[in-house]
Amino acid sequence: MTAQTPQTYDDLKEIYQSFISRRDKDRHMNIFWETNPSKFNNGNQSLIELSGGMPNESFFPIESINLNILTEPVSNDTIPSIVTREKPEILSLSRTLQYALSEGFPPLIEFIEKFITKLNNIPLYDKNLWKIILAGGSCDSLFKIFETCTDENSTVMVEELTFVPVVSNIINTGAKIIPLKLNLNNKDEGIDLNYMESLLSNWETGPYKHLERPKFLYTIPTGQNPTGLTQSVEKRRKIYKLAQKFNFVILEDDPYGYLKFPKYNHENPLENPYKDGKSISSDEYIKNVLMKSYISMDTDGRVIRFETFSKIFAPGMRLSFVIMNNFFYDKFLKFQEISTRQPSGISQQIVYSTIHSMTSSKDDKDIIESWLQWIMKLACNYTERRNVMLQALYESESFKIDQFSIVEPSAGMFIIIKINFDESKGNIIEQMNKVFNLMDNNGVRAILGYKMAVDQEFSKDHLNFFRLTYSYADNNNQIKEAINRINKSLLEYFK
Amino acid sequence: MTAQTPQTYDDLKEIYQSFISRRDKDRHMNIFWETNPSKFNNGNQSLIELSGGMPNESFFPIESINLNILTEPVSNDTIPSIVTREKPEILSLSRTLQYALSEGFPPLIEFIEKFITKLNNIPLYDKNLWKIILAGGSCDSLFKIFETCTDENSTVMVEELTFVPVVSNIINTGAKIIPLKLNLNNKDEGIDLNYMESLLSNWETGPYKHLERPKFLYTIPTGQNPTGLTQSVEKRRKIYKLAQKFNFVILEDDPYGYLKFPKYNHENPLENPYKDGKSISSDEYIKNVLMKSYISMDTDGRVIRFETFSKIFAPGMRLSFVIMNNFFYDKFLKFQEISTRQPSGISQQIVYSTIHSMTSSKDDKDIIESWLQWIMKLACNYTERRNVMLQALYESESFKIDQFSIVEPSAGMFIIIKINFDESKGNIIEQMNKVFNLMDNNGVRAILGYKMAVDQEFSKDHLNFFRLTYSYADNNNQIKEAINRINKSLLEYFK
Repeated sequence: MTAQTPQTYDDLKEIYQSFISRRDKDRHMNIFWETNPSKFNNGNQSLIELSGGMPNESFFPIESINLNILTEPVSNDTIPSIVTREKPEILSLSRTLQYALSEGFPPLIEFIEKFITKLNNIPLYDKNLWKIILAGGSCDSLFKIFETCTDENSTVMVEELTFVPVVSNIINTGAKIIPLKLNLNNKDEGIDLNYMESLLSNWETGPYKHLERPKFLYTIPTGQNPTGLTQSVEKRRKIYKLAQKFNFVILEDDPYGYLKFPKYNHENPLENPYKDGKSISSDEYIKNVLMKSYISMDTDGRVIRFETFSKIFAPGMRLSFVIMNNFFYDKFLKFQEISTRQPSGISQQIVYSTIHSMTSSKDDKDIIESWLQWIMKLACNYTERRNVMLQALYESESFKIDQFSIVEPSAGMFIIIKINFDESKGNIIEQMNKVFNLMDNNGVRAILGYKMAVDQEFSKDHLNFFRLTYSYADNNNQIKEAINRINKSLLEYFK
Repeated sequence: MTAQTPQTYDDLKEIYQSFISRRDKDRHMNIFWETNPSKFNNGNQSLIELSGGMPNESFFPIESINLNILTEPVSNDTIPSIVTREKPEILSLSRTLQYALSEGFPPLIEFIEKFITKLNNIPLYDKNLWKIILAGGSCDSLFKIFETCTDENSTVMVEELTFVPVVSNIINTGAKIIPLKLNLNNKDEGIDLNYMESLLSNWETGPYKHLERPKFLYTIPTGQNPTGLTQSVEKRRKIYKLAQKFNFVILEDDPYGYLKFPKYNHENPLENPYKDGKSISSDEYIKNVLMKSYISMDTDGRVIRFETFSKIFAPGMRLSFVIMNNFFYDKFLKFQEISTRQPSGISQQIVYSTIHSMTSSKDDKDIIESWLQWIMKLACNYTERRNVMLQALYESESFKIDQFSIVEPSAGMFIIIKINFDESKGNIIEQMNKVFNLMDNNGVRAILGYKMAVDQEFSKDHLNFFRLTYSYADNNNQIKEAINRINKSLLEYFK
């Protein structure tokens, strides 16, 4: 099968039918309500609905909500915004407190569409052939896509180190997982292309010849979890070409994409081009800072892109969205209808109203711009934290005497440090555990890298790292103190 | 197997292992974070966490939320309540905007436990052997329970007329559905006990002998959807005995339980004991108005009870809870962790804060009482609407000349009217459709009863009804006008 640009819904259906699971085919939704519009038309009188089993809206105990919205992160300046039964007109509280469409509220979806269009994070094929659906956080989005698409006969490629709960989602559908080698360095960040190409080209003689050829690649291309690495645009293009050649779908999970940083400057560690008087404009941010997404290269409809409000708004909203071709969309929506229905209406309301209250302008362009400004301020704050942690790591005694090496992130929330263990001193996992316990005794915790390996045997050379999160610490001093304690622990270990 | 009161977790496991699906057994959750508490203890210094991939809370764009809470339904009087990063202390905005436990926030769960204990809606077996979990609306709860418990080898009994999306949830797990006959009258409301007992006693020679014996009964015992009927306590006791004898689990879906009304008074149609100077006290409401739930009879752990905030708070919260024994709970929680994670934090916050702001008292007793007062005011409002609609129906010309009969609800949101068709004039479904179209032309819509039948052939004598919702109309006059239009449509049809 050769790659082709779909022209119609039937094209999509033909191309992607074989990606749909057996269990999906058994799914159907029984509805009992009339979906055709009424033909009633009688002057001023309107149709009276006695159909829906909906509670009366005047019985909802909330009359209005005042949101006090931060003007920028870590500040006390707020913008008051009021949401009532009637306001905002386009998405009033009466609507968001009531039952609603499983796909999410149209005004929020329309905003998202305008926003991702501004960022060029949209597919190259016909605009009428893809859609956006809201879901209850990326975990929910991913769960639903694997429930929809994979089963006992599926094989899914994933990065050898990854956000392992997703591995559970995949395995639980009966599908098989294949780890892909990663380059854990800043020269050729992320998936090892040679390994991947060779694996796919020599499938029938390779280690997985007993399995079906992979139909999916699950990847976190920017600020990867746990490695912090970001795939170059060239690498993305080559992987997309492989997807066309070997006919797989790319599941692009991009929670950290907006938290994209300038390169760390060793001469001037705290350099932060987001501020420092060289403030980056939103156009520069879009053009030169943000990475090109897989979906923006997608001519075939073979990319499904996952975004979330968890990192740029708040995880407690449990709000995410998925961009995909209409065929996948219909299947996904059907599953959403039959399972969780719509994500929280009040979450959607608060995200919508907060974004629209960040500027007093009603112009879409201004609203997009002010939301971009918020996101860039976040990226600015995370850049500073990344810089502070990297500087502390580079300046630590333990680093200077070569007890560990550092992989520099240019996005996201994580830095990994690789410990230079002496393998003759025993099993890496045991050594890692010893360091973990020393760190714990010294009052600092980080993630044991080997716990994020899909297959420890496969990743035996990549088990010697810790994932450090710089996002959650209270402030820069706490980051420095944490690194201090790590330094102390490593010095103790290697003594 | 005989019914037994479980004493330990292992008892539960032994008793209920066979109710767990094949697919559930394949499920497991990979975690990569350390779950043991740190042993770090160093004076004033505290452990620094670099483990979690959590965003920094000072970056969430909401500083505080002011809720304006209605003092009673359909009023303009509000109580202002403010929720901030620090308040309420027990469940601050910082917590609810962040990632959190999949089972829901403990303070909200604790409130629910106190509340249902006050109502006696708790099991009779050891308090340490059951739990409450929060989920994203009852659709989500039910989806998860069927995903957890049923598969190709399961048989589930359901009321012959029911909320059919749940039928989809059941069928989608591969399970088989068995409809149970309903009595559609006010003498012996709901499931036909003789039919049910005979079916179970004569399984091997009955119509479903090719299927496994049923392991589940799914029932909406109060204000049933679509029939509006409420099972008597005696009936519930007998059904529970059958569950023990034939070893099935009762899935008690009770969204309408709190909307329980006094009997309609034909002498005084608008009599409403919730007001009328005879105001019902909360103790009377609990003792004499609310129905005894199946879970309050449960000695075995064989009842799973589903409640929701959709009808007594607002559907847009997407917030529900399930009460079940710990073994089911653990399975359910595992599936929730692997799929949607926690329901919206902000929804939980708003429900919690609203309930706790309805009184200025900090005493649990007062908080429960004020929440009960709110719920009784809702029940009062729905009682009035029910009365208005019933009165209009009884007074309609169409009713007086016997064109339809009425089933009186004593709970919930629905009234059904059964049309007295002349069967010689053709197929009931065709006749129903004709009336539907006439109603539509006259500007009123209701639900075609036959669309809520699980099996139209099985329910062939019960297809001739419309479900009318009295909850959603704007006011009493609109309810009267709707009945007026129905009356007109029926007169036209029978002319």
